[in-house]
Amino acid sequence: MHNMSESESSAQAAVYQKPFSRAEFASRIGDTKRRMEKAGFDLIICQDPANMCWLTGFDGWSFYVPQCVLVHLEEEWPIWFGRAQDRNSARFTTDLPDENILPFSERLVQHPSEHPYDELAAFIRKKGWERARIGVEMDAHYYTARCHAHLTSGLPDARFTGNGDLVNWARLVKSPRELELMREAGRICTHAMNKAIAAIKPGVPQNRVIAEIYYAQTMGVPGAGGDYAAICPLMPVGEGTSTPHLTFSDAALPNNALAMLEIAGARRRYHAPLTRTIYLGRPPAEIADVAKTVVEGVDAGLQMAKPGNTAETVEAEWQAVLRRHGLKKESRAGYSVGLAYPPDWGERTVSLRPGDRTELQAGMCFHLQSGVWLSDWGVAISESFIVTDKGGERLCDAPRELIVID
Amino acid sequence: MHNMSESESSAQAAVYQKPFSRAEFASRIGDTKRRMEKAGFDLIICQDPANMCWLTGFDGWSFYVPQCVLVHLEEEWPIWFGRAQDRNSARFTTDLPDENILPFSERLVQHPSEHPYDELAAFIRKKGWERARIGVEMDAHYYTARCHAHLTSGLPDARFTGNGDLVNWARLVKSPRELELMREAGRICTHAMNKAIAAIKPGVPQNRVIAEIYYAQTMGVPGAGGDYAAICPLMPVGEGTSTPHLTFSDAALPNNALAMLEIAGARRRYHAPLTRTIYLGRPPAEIADVAKTVVEGVDAGLQMAKPGNTAETVEAEWQAVLRRHGLKKESRAGYSVGLAYPPDWGERTVSLRPGDRTELQAGMCFHLQSGVWLSDWGVAISESFIVTDKGGERLCDAPRELIVID
Repeated sequence: MHNMSESESSAQAAVYQKPFSRAEFASRIGDTKRRMEKAGFDLIICQDPANMCWLTGFDGWSFYVPQCVLVHLEEEWPIWFGRAQDRNSARFTTDLPDENILPFSERLVQHPSEHPYDELAAFIRKKGWERARIGVEMDAHYYTARCHAHLTSGLPDARFTGNGDLVNWARLVKSPRELELMREAGRICTHAMNKAIAAIKPGVPQNRVIAEIYYAQTMGVPGAGGDYAAICPLMPVGEGTSTPHLTFSDAALPNNALAMLEIAGARRRYHAPLTRTIYLGRPPAEIADVAKTVVEGVDAGLQMAKPGNTAETVEAEWQAVLRRHGLKKESRAGYSVGLAYPPDWGERTVSLRPGDRTELQAGMCFHLQSGVWLSDWGVAISESFIVTDKGGERLCDAPRELIVID
Repeated sequence: MHNMSESESSAQAAVYQKPFSRAEFASRIGDTKRRMEKAGFDLIICQDPANMCWLTGFDGWSFYVPQCVLVHLEEEWPIWFGRAQDRNSARFTTDLPDENILPFSERLVQHPSEHPYDELAAFIRKKGWERARIGVEMDAHYYTARCHAHLTSGLPDARFTGNGDLVNWARLVKSPRELELMREAGRICTHAMNKAIAAIKPGVPQNRVIAEIYYAQTMGVPGAGGDYAAICPLMPVGEGTSTPHLTFSDAALPNNALAMLEIAGARRRYHAPLTRTIYLGRPPAEIADVAKTVVEGVDAGLQMAKPGNTAETVEAEWQAVLRRHGLKKESRAGYSVGLAYPPDWGERTVSLRPGDRTELQAGMCFHLQSGVWLSDWGVAISESFIVTDKGGERLCDAPRELIVID
């Protein structure tokens, strides 16, 4: 390109600004290798896009085709494996040396009999790792039954086991830089929630409220532009509040009804989710009472969110408040959050529920999904928080009450 | 609830409007069962959210936990299997009889050793189907290696095989009602693309353009509100245009550089994707020339998109135009589109590429992803279209040229 040199240099600067230092990635790899040694793995294969990003910085919407990051105990850097046309995404977004960026053949995309992981298995054999103890992410969202079948049949002498979400667990305690991004995500979420609340009125089409949320989530706040969230804005309405995952339509918001909002702020893929419940009209006393109990339960749960306490104690404290008021939440009361890609902003590790005895440490982040879903309606008023010595530090600052639009 | 009866009835109307008639679902199930008989399956288990929706109408953002729809030859209706708290989503969005809505225990969500599909296997045994010929979706995005392991170990006497994406193939030719939604999706996409083009200027932060796109995608057009798209708006900038799946940041758009937009309009989960390329400044002749070739190639490809021709002939015609101008596209030139959920708006069936001899039929829909990615830049100007007797009918109506913002 004769006349691209000037524009190229100006463009290159704009391509990608890395959110983390090389040193932080080196420390993550070191931590991961220590966990691998302890668990008895020579090699782990990570397809969870959040794990790929955490290990290398790799970012892009290419997770709909097979791709992964390999960490081998004897390799200094991880190896990125993905589609040829996404190779430049790996070059732009990671610090990996070029020889660790491994593209697969384009013709293998959605091929009926062959699979990209045939080439991955061949690569692993070529490296002499064909008898390795290999840990795979059996339940990562995009690691399909077919991915596993091609990988294991291409490496018949390797010892495959699930790696117990080893990297997800390594992500649990956030670094200072990660906490900066989580706090920015919290501010973005507060901004988007306030915009949503301001837009909600009987007669307004649901999708107009959602459009305001998307706009605010994406614009972000001064100094912190938004990123796409791992889940679309959820807004069950009326009897729809009895179930948490209905998405929006273009129907008008009703009068004398509940609406529930569950959204996140996202900053460089770090997520702070939040739920609020709105009553359009004058709320029946029963709903207002449940809302008060939920807020009281959150306050109690957050007080327990200190280092040394276990995950289940946060849930127990919240559930105790519910019980005093004759209520109960069937599903888990929360989960670890942070770096995330669709379809979920949870980290698939710690759950705030009975039996989860994970010891809390400063810098862990959770979404306390404090909601009560009854047979034909529900109320949820949640908080995302960081575990600190003083208890849970809220990431968002939206009104802590049933929001009444009368 | 003593005082909810009035609000309930007004709210219920707002919960969910079904986009398809009961008759259309009956016809889809009939078609699916004929394909099952032909392929030798008693039972298929579908976890692809688009297949679940196409078979039953089920809609909601709950696909981050294991869930599926079962079709058995001897059952009149499909069976929905999912998380207890999502059961009401199935009640609202489907016509399934209540006994065909099967919830799994909440404690199984992200459980380290047990799995929801343990309960699914137990249900299948209870139905007396434990020796059935079962077809699973080996490569559906959320059908993980762990889902498959629990299902097969819970049904040791069943005969499991991949079902060859049987339902995805059944979705290929769209019904008249589906084509209505596809055309509405196309109009939404045109609207969003025009808003994006109007917002693009050097110095404008990338995320502001994306915010405008989200707003327009969600608002939709008069009479057709938007739905969330299966892929976030993609906008590689500068040298980033050399790779297609980079997402946005809050960096300012540069001057004298390329930007590429890939977005979809979505209407009731039906997608019309579109790509356009923008030059900020006066485009170098080489880029303008490639853009002209790409547009010419699309026109040629669309002329071939008639019933009776094969998928590969569309690609060949487009590639022939490129070749005449000394260019080549390495990756497939397009793919079937329609009903979709994250992470992909493609249907994972027909690809417009050499070797795909699928015979085109009226009512199939494709995204002709007519882009050329070179080593340090790329140009893509695509079209989504319906196969008709007159060739490809465009779903969108955005400017068919390199868009110059000078």
